[in-house]
Formats: sequence, structure tokens, C-alpha cells
Amino acid sequence: MNSNDNNNMVAFIGWHEGSAGLVHSWLEKTGNYQITCFIHTDDNPPVINKIPRPASQFSYPQNSKFKGLPFICRSNWPQYLKSKGISKVLITTPDSSERAHQIMVALEAGLELVNAIHPSALIMEDAILGKNIIMHANSFLGYRAELHDGVILNTGAQVDHHCVLGKSVTIAPGVVMASNVNIEEKCTVYTAAVIKNNITIKNNSIIGAGSVVIRDVEENKIMVGVPAREKSE
Amino acid sequence: MNSNDNNNMVAFIGWHEGSAGLVHSWLEKTGNYQITCFIHTDDNPPVINKIPRPASQFSYPQNSKFKGLPFICRSNWPQYLKSKGISKVLITTPDSSERAHQIMVALEAGLELVNAIHPSALIMEDAILGKNIIMHANSFLGYRAELHDGVILNTGAQVDHHCVLGKSVTIAPGVVMASNVNIEEKCTVYTAAVIKNNITIKNNSIIGAGSVVIRDVEENKIMVGVPAREKSE
Amino acid sequence: MNSNDNNNMVAFIGWHEGSAGLVHSWLEKTGNYQITCFIHTDDNPPVINKIPRPASQFSYPQNSKFKGLPFICRSNWPQYLKSKGISKVLITTPDSSERAHQIMVALEAGLELVNAIHPSALIMEDAILGKNIIMHANSFLGYRAELHDGVILNTGAQVDHHCVLGKSVTIAPGVVMASNVNIEEKCTVYTAAVIKNNITIKNNSIIGAGSVVIRDVEENKIMVGVPAREKSE
Repeated sequence: MNSNDNNNMVAFIGWHEGSAGLVHSWLEKTGNYQITCFIHTDDNPPVINKIPRPASQFSYPQNSKFKGLPFICRSNWPQYLKSKGISKVLITTPDSSERAHQIMVALEAGLELVNAIHPSALIMEDAILGKNIIMHANSFLGYRAELHDGVILNTGAQVDHHCVLGKSVTIAPGVVMASNVNIEEKCTVYTAAVIKNNITIKNNSIIGAGSVVIRDVEENKIMVGVPAREKSE
Repeated sequence: MNSNDNNNMVAFIGWHEGSAGLVHSWLEKTGNYQITCFIHTDDNPPVINKIPRPASQFSYPQNSKFKGLPFICRSNWPQYLKSKGISKVLITTPDSSERAHQIMVALEAGLELVNAIHPSALIMEDAILGKNIIMHANSFLGYRAELHDGVILNTGAQVDHHCVLGKSVTIAPGVVMASNVNIEEKCTVYTAAVIKNNITIKNNSIIGAGSVVIRDVEENKIMVGVPAREKSE
Repeated sequence: MNSNDNNNMVAFIGWHEGSAGLVHSWLEKTGNYQITCFIHTDDNPPVINKIPRPASQFSYPQNSKFKGLPFICRSNWPQYLKSKGISKVLITTPDSSERAHQIMVALEAGLELVNAIHPSALIMEDAILGKNIIMHANSFLGYRAELHDGVILNTGAQVDHHCVLGKSVTIAPGVVMASNVNIEEKCTVYTAAVIKNNITIKNNSIIGAGSVVIRDVEENKIMVGVPAREKSE
């Protein structure tokens, strides 16, 4: 790491194998970035719940390394990165609210947010992308659709024409969104949920896996089922 | 516009931003056609319901223009086009019945119907395509599957092997159809509906968004839910 | 057929038009294999139920031919193939249990199992593939996901990162599987079913079309609906 600010070095904020680890597996091969380190945004190392997993390959941070790169635990990470001459970051944190917060911190510190678009993702004409967008493999962004800062589109997720996704919205694999859908800030739409055209989903709401949304959704709701209804607890 | 009949000029019938507008955004870049005008098939301009929309970019016809091209309102549009030397048309009208009607009018007038296949669409071996087929981005047509005149496959719709879709069938984004499905004329299958293999859906029926069809469907039905049942009103 | 063992000749075990027939339509064009014959693993010809089908093109075995190639009915097929100098096979049998059995027979006879991966399929970094894997058009295998011998991923099926699919699992078109899913041997997941992340589905279970699996599934179960529940009979 040198102190030259005009470089292609990127720090990843976050260390989850299915987000930071996965994007790390393809970003350098497909773009101009060199990933330099992974950051945990606290001075204490994360407490990691190593549940049994089916896969034979799964990476956790350990001994101050993650995926062969430095794993750095610092609450003052923006200052640390700048002192190392690293001005570009990608916030990979899966949780929408945490991601939104870390994006704000990075922007306030004058760090540059980069995008990570897998080469198999398809972006149609006149689509608008903010900063810190992650588009995973086979994801789709339609004609004149708009992704605000911090949106994640997971594998094969379809965001059709004229949809607008607010800040730090998280879209899980296989979600299908018809046209003119409006999803406000920090919502999460889980695996393979379906959203009818012209629907609005307000701030911080959650759509369950496999749900089918056919009516507008208010703020802070958890919606599940076909058609999606508020989850009773 | 000149009167040379052996040319690549195409008139679009229809003016909906999510159909004509969307296809306009990619057709010229991906094929040999030059789009010359948009046609409204009535002598009076359309009454347009400009509902509020999330997207910052949305085009409506106005001042006799749509997307920078002439917007022409004529009930005798086939004669008009021929008088201008335009012999090729693409009927983009979203409604299945209207589209079927306009296709018939175009054919009776001796106009040539063209296809619009997005380059990301995948067509397997021995598939059969009629005329005035629109295959949007990432749509899929399986081995030996057949699309009759006027079929629209929207974003990421999968029509698997040996399926047959009748005239002017409309398939919304993310629909998944297993093999050997038979959908008769002018049916509409809405967003991300699923159709089991070997199912027949008869003329003019409608399948709701997110529905799962596991039994044959008679004519003129509206089916919704998992599994799909006739909609009660 | 000659007796040179170092060749690219492959025999297909199975003769279903939607499996053997479909893979035959693209395998030679996309790889190094020459398909030499189709095998029915019994000394008597199959009894074929020729139901009416919508498609105008549909191939059945007849007069000892299937798709223009020899159609051979032999219970001692491994010995027969070896006597003809054919050492490579692809088991295309749709049924998971039959496929598992035929794979075992082929391996015991010292035949080589080949894979059939359509060029439009996407395989992410560090994915692990066994033998006799069929990945149909637009199927997806995620980062560090694992397919054991005999797995079939049908059209557009998504198997996300760190999933593990056991021997002879069959995944129908449009299935969406989130991350860290564990599907044990000989399970079948039907059209467009959805499986939440971290789910385990034990041996020989069946997931119905359009179902949404949000809880672990025991052995030998048939699960249907949203959320998926054991099928009552």
C-alpha cells in the first residue's frame, strides 16, 4: 500500500463470505480494481458463529487475515484507510441499515465509493446507477430503472423498466420485479419474491422469500405469503 | 421517408413507454431496422393517464412526437404507411386482443410484420417463430418450442422445450413455463407466474402474477393463487 | 464406431426427447463429443405412451433409431459399448433413482462419465462439479457450490453460493435456491420452486412446482405449497 491517491486500490468494508468473499472472487478479474484489505468497522474482532455448513470451502476471518488479505478491525477505518493512501471503498455489509450507515460514514470522510457489476449482469438503456452498487451474476436492471447508493441486486434478480430502488435496498436472488415499482430506502426483498408492477414499498419494509406483493406496503412492515400479507406474530 | 419499398424502415404501432418505448431503445442498435414513427390507430390522439411515477425518465407522446419521432394518429394507418413507402411494421400494443386485431389489419393490408429479438434472448435449436414476435432481454425459447404471430415474451420469461404459444399470447417478466405447455390465443400470463409441464391453457384466459398453474385452464378464465384457482369476484 | 479407446464418442443412456433429445440438440455443437447412439437399458424396447402434444416436432425412438442414430435395447449395455470401443457415456435418464443406478452400473463397468454443460450456463469461481452433470441453458452454479455425480440443473435453475447438491439430484426449470442449501441424494425439485438459504432437504424428497421451502425437509417427503408443507393424500 502506498500513499498515491490516484490508484485502483479498494478496501472492502465487510467480511461475510457470501458477500465480501463472493465479490472478491470476481471483482479483480473483471475490472480495474485491486482489493487490498477487508475491514471490520469495530475495534474488537467480530464474534463469528461458525454453524455447520454443507460446503467444503468456506472462508472466515482468522489471524488478522480473510481470503489471504489483511483483516483490519478499526472503528476509525476511514482515517486508517486514508493514512494508507486508500481512497476507494466498497461497502459489502449485507444488512441494509448497517450498509446505509457505513456509506454515510465513508462519504463524510471523503472516501470514494465504487461499484461492483458482474460481467454477466445486464443493464438496459438509460438506467441510472448511484454509488456502491453491487450487481451480482445474471442480475438485470431495466430500461430507465434507477438504483440509488448502496443497492445490492443478488443473483438473477430482475428489476424491470422504470423501477426505482432507494438507498441501501437489498434484493435477494431470483427476485422478479415488474415495471414502475418504487422501493424506498433500506427495504429488503428476500429470495425469489415477486412484485407486481406499479407497487410502492415504503422505507425499511421486508418482503419474505417467495412472497407475491400485489398491494402497496407501508413503512416498517414484514410481508409474507401469496398474496403478501403482514406477518402475524 | 422515401417511397422505396426495399428498405429497412419500420413503423411501430403503439406508443406505450414500457413496450414501444422500450423496444425502440434497443432495436436499432441490435438489428437492421430504422424506426421511422409511432402510430396510434385512431384519428384522435390517445387520452393519456399520467399517473405519478417513481422514475425520473418517462416518455409520453406529445406535440405529435414520441421519443423524438413522428407520432401519428390515423385509423387508416396501413394506407398512410404505404403512401410513405413504409412496408414494415411492428405491433407493440400490450393488450393481447388489440394486438391480434392490429396484426390482422396489417396482414390484410399487405404490410410486413417484423420481429424484435433482444440480443440477450436465447433461442434453442429447432424453435419456431412466427411474425411480430417480441422477445425482451434475457427471455428464453426452448428446443422445438413454437411462438405464433404476435407473441410477446417479456424480461427473463422462460418458455421451455416443446411449448406452443398461440397468437398474440402475452407473457410477463419472469414467467417460468416447464415443457410441453400449450397456451392458446390471446392469453396473458402475468409476472413470474409458473406453469407446470403438459398444461393446456385455452383461449383468452388470464393467469395472475405469482400464480402456479398445475391443472388445465378453460377459455376466458382468470386464475390466481398457489395452486391457481378461478378468481372469485 | 471403431475400437480406439482414446476417442470422443459418447453413448447417451436414455431416450427421452426432453432430456436425451434436448442435450443431443446442442452437445456436439458446443463441445468435443460425438454422440454415437442412444441406449435403452433393457432387452425389450420401451413401451412409449405417445400422448397428444402441442408441438409439431417431437421425436420418439422407432425402428431402432432415435434422432437418426442407433437406438439400442440391451440390459448388458456396458459390455456392449465396450465391445464397440465406446468408453464414454452420459446418463440422461430423468428419474433420479434410475439415473443413480445407471451411474453406478457405468462406474462399476469402468465406463467414463462425461458432463454436458450448455455454453449459456454460468459457473462461478471455485464451484465443484462431479461427473455426469447436466447443466441446461441459462442454469447457474454459484461460488463454491458443489454438484455431486449425476445432478441435473434444468433451464435457468439457480444454485447459489455454497449450496451442495447430492448424487443424482434433479432440479427442474426456474428453481431458485439461495445460499448454503444442502440437498441430499436423489431429491427432485420441481419447476420454479424456491428454497430459502441454509435449508437442508434429506434423501429422496420431492419439492412440488412453485413451492417455497422455508424449513428443513426430512427424508422421503413430498412437500408442496407456500410455505411448503407435507402433501396430504
